[in-house]
Amino acid sequence: MPMPPNSYDPATFKTLTFHDRLANFEAGSDDPRAYLERCLEVVAAEEPVVQAFAYLDEDLARAAADESAARWKAGKPLSAIDGMPVGIKDLLETRDMPTQMNCKAYEGNFPKNDNSLVTALRQAGAVIFGKTVTAELGGSHPGPTTNPFDATRTPGGSSSGSAAAVAAGMMPAAIGSQVGGSIIRPAAYCGNVALKPSQGGIHRGERQVTSMSTHGPHAGCIEDMWRVAIEIASRTGGDPGHTGLMGPMTAPEAVKPERLVVLETEGWAKTDDASKTAFAGLMENMERAGITLIRRADNSAVESLEASIADGTHVCGTITAWENRWGHRNLLNNHPDGASQRIKNTLAQAEAMTPDDYRDLVLRREHARVNYAATAPLADAAVTFACPGPATPWSGDTPGEPLASRPTGDAVFNYPSSMLGAPVVTVPLMGVGGLPVGLQVIGQREQDARVAAIARWLLENVPPVSV
Amino acid sequence: MPMPPNSYDPATFKTLTFHDRLANFEAGSDDPRAYLERCLEVVAAEEPVVQAFAYLDEDLARAAADESAARWKAGKPLSAIDGMPVGIKDLLETRDMPTQMNCKAYEGNFPKNDNSLVTALRQAGAVIFGKTVTAELGGSHPGPTTNPFDATRTPGGSSSGSAAAVAAGMMPAAIGSQVGGSIIRPAAYCGNVALKPSQGGIHRGERQVTSMSTHGPHAGCIEDMWRVAIEIASRTGGDPGHTGLMGPMTAPEAVKPERLVVLETEGWAKTDDASKTAFAGLMENMERAGITLIRRADNSAVESLEASIADGTHVCGTITAWENRWGHRNLLNNHPDGASQRIKNTLAQAEAMTPDDYRDLVLRREHARVNYAATAPLADAAVTFACPGPATPWSGDTPGEPLASRPTGDAVFNYPSSMLGAPVVTVPLMGVGGLPVGLQVIGQREQDARVAAIARWLLENVPPVSV
Repeated sequence: MPMPPNSYDPATFKTLTFHDRLANFEAGSDDPRAYLERCLEVVAAEEPVVQAFAYLDEDLARAAADESAARWKAGKPLSAIDGMPVGIKDLLETRDMPTQMNCKAYEGNFPKNDNSLVTALRQAGAVIFGKTVTAELGGSHPGPTTNPFDATRTPGGSSSGSAAAVAAGMMPAAIGSQVGGSIIRPAAYCGNVALKPSQGGIHRGERQVTSMSTHGPHAGCIEDMWRVAIEIASRTGGDPGHTGLMGPMTAPEAVKPERLVVLETEGWAKTDDASKTAFAGLMENMERAGITLIRRADNSAVESLEASIADGTHVCGTITAWENRWGHRNLLNNHPDGASQRIKNTLAQAEAMTPDDYRDLVLRREHARVNYAATAPLADAAVTFACPGPATPWSGDTPGEPLASRPTGDAVFNYPSSMLGAPVVTVPLMGVGGLPVGLQVIGQREQDARVAAIARWLLENVPPVSV
Repeated sequence: MPMPPNSYDPATFKTLTFHDRLANFEAGSDDPRAYLERCLEVVAAEEPVVQAFAYLDEDLARAAADESAARWKAGKPLSAIDGMPVGIKDLLETRDMPTQMNCKAYEGNFPKNDNSLVTALRQAGAVIFGKTVTAELGGSHPGPTTNPFDATRTPGGSSSGSAAAVAAGMMPAAIGSQVGGSIIRPAAYCGNVALKPSQGGIHRGERQVTSMSTHGPHAGCIEDMWRVAIEIASRTGGDPGHTGLMGPMTAPEAVKPERLVVLETEGWAKTDDASKTAFAGLMENMERAGITLIRRADNSAVESLEASIADGTHVCGTITAWENRWGHRNLLNNHPDGASQRIKNTLAQAEAMTPDDYRDLVLRREHARVNYAATAPLADAAVTFACPGPATPWSGDTPGEPLASRPTGDAVFNYPSSMLGAPVVTVPLMGVGGLPVGLQVIGQREQDARVAAIARWLLENVPPVSV
């Protein structure tokens, strides 16, 4: 699995999968313990550089894998992901591991609770495979994780460890969470597929304080991604008050999209020319495959949508800063040096706001959602970049200099789909300079299964582009 | 303030108020420290029987009152509730007091955080006046608090201490919280006014895990009730994603309702004849005051609404049991003896459910909300009992016998307005056997100020009824 820097080619890259091992588990020619041991070999080789784990207890994982192996041997697996090693982003509570959120104030934090999603994974027989590194508190202050395709670059954030661990072949799936762009962007930088569910689609357990966040899987393929998501949601349902993610227990059959809306978003202006060239090539491949593309110049509803998401970075960032203000204020009152200057700066921004400022932003978000719903009859889904070009270099802040503004990369393409509450699947269909660049497939609210079906079709039928 | 049992008369009962002291604070003839000392005298006299406090540090309260007194003396109060002693239900975190939730597993729990509402009250200069008793975890397992009008009876729950403390004249206002009926019912049993805001109207801080809960004030009068609510909401805004409570900074002017929908709900069948007689008398007084009453027999939209809320107890109770299942499971895993059998029974019920069961209930709740919105053009508000007759006796469970089903009384009249997400004000307009019985005034979503204005008009213009 070790690879030379910048060697990624979307046409040939394959990473670890799980769904295709079940026949061997049933036949007895492979088992979850052996699968885990192969993962641990990759961890031993890659972790010193990738640093995807915030916490790993190999004995705990082996014990869970042995239990799963016994179930498979007895012909009684608990689900189609029984035995799957799944990493958990270190924002989510796990009863047998600390939850430290890459935040000084949470060092040693060990609440001995399971997030609802972790409970569901355990009930499905998955092997909870350690805690993966998050940017501090799910924000932008980075952890130590590096991009598996180039260790001088960020893996993206805040689900840094989950994205990198899947890309490096350490595990077939890992759980991320996204407020602005924390699932889709790192997945796109790391060549994964990933699902950010519709807002409310997967129960968030103890993490309910923001109006715009979701938990979802990173994986090496659509099949594993979907199975993890549906095995969770079939046990937890959605967030309080939401009907939650529904769909088949295996990945939806591929569905060809007849028409796709192509969005620019404010990200377009921030994207390098090479990536735009790759994107243009990919769009040509789509048209060649018989898909009609609809852009802002073609349709006034798309233009209205573009206008209403044109400052998504501001709207999303500010809404979330406000929603976190009381929690972060309590944290800093109790631990004045317990969080980074980045958190302190965001809190100061929030504490200068009024409820009216927040109302204005919530209403703008609602307007954008109305405009998005109005595009539903136009096309089967929308597509855009999942990240503004390949992962950016990151070597740390320079003491005495202003803080680097986006150490885990820019979520500029992700804020719009986050503010729309829309389901998103990112698919690895572009390579730029030997690094992955993902394509975001965005559906209408609650149409997660449809988006997965379209993403699958695109992956299977549209030739990827490298430049 | 001590009173003989069952002596309540809604026509004459007056309890503590605060808004009418501000002129004296400004003139220097009274000050918040003196006000607090008068409250503490009532506490000293009443608390041995009423037992409203879960925690009270008099020195802490005196220090806050002294700071407020200094501000008034300097002519610089922070708000119209600067110096108001306000009790906080012991479900909500307070940085300088433990938060024990009347639950064994939380004994000694001291997170040193402020709930957002507590932060807002401090910013407004209010005197945080101890923690008031809650039923265990906000459920139905009672604490020690007794009804100030008859110590053999429940004060209602789960906001038991807040309701009783206001009724006993220990404080002019106290914060409650409601999922099913935990603000409105105890207020109605205790002769208070109280506001259950529109769902999402007041930010809930760390308590976001249920889809149907609100925080709101108990008070001795509409003016104090409204001022507490708006001073909080003008600082916290609403829950994540909600625009939140808005309105004037003093209580809305009284507004006469021309037409009122009179709801029966499933509570009607559970109400004693004496209370129905009082209610009939009150409705006659309303008609005499020129209000047109519209009942289910008069209008098909009202009948549809009644049908869709007819099993509100089941819908609300089951939704909430499901939403609490992960938190309560973690609690009981860590503290097998840390909660009552009532909590364990509810958890067992929830753990036998599937996400589809929950979806069905959420959809039924949505249907009820649609039916309620359809009645908006009919009338200015809806009214019904706030409790099914006066507070019920409670002397504890009998060892070896089945658990008493509703030790803090029956929320049967409150579940409907909770499931509708509607704003509710309860007004003390009935006395039955010398005990208070409240009338619930229910508005359309987000029309909290309008409901307060109508409640005020009813209080000021409709003669109360005692039987």
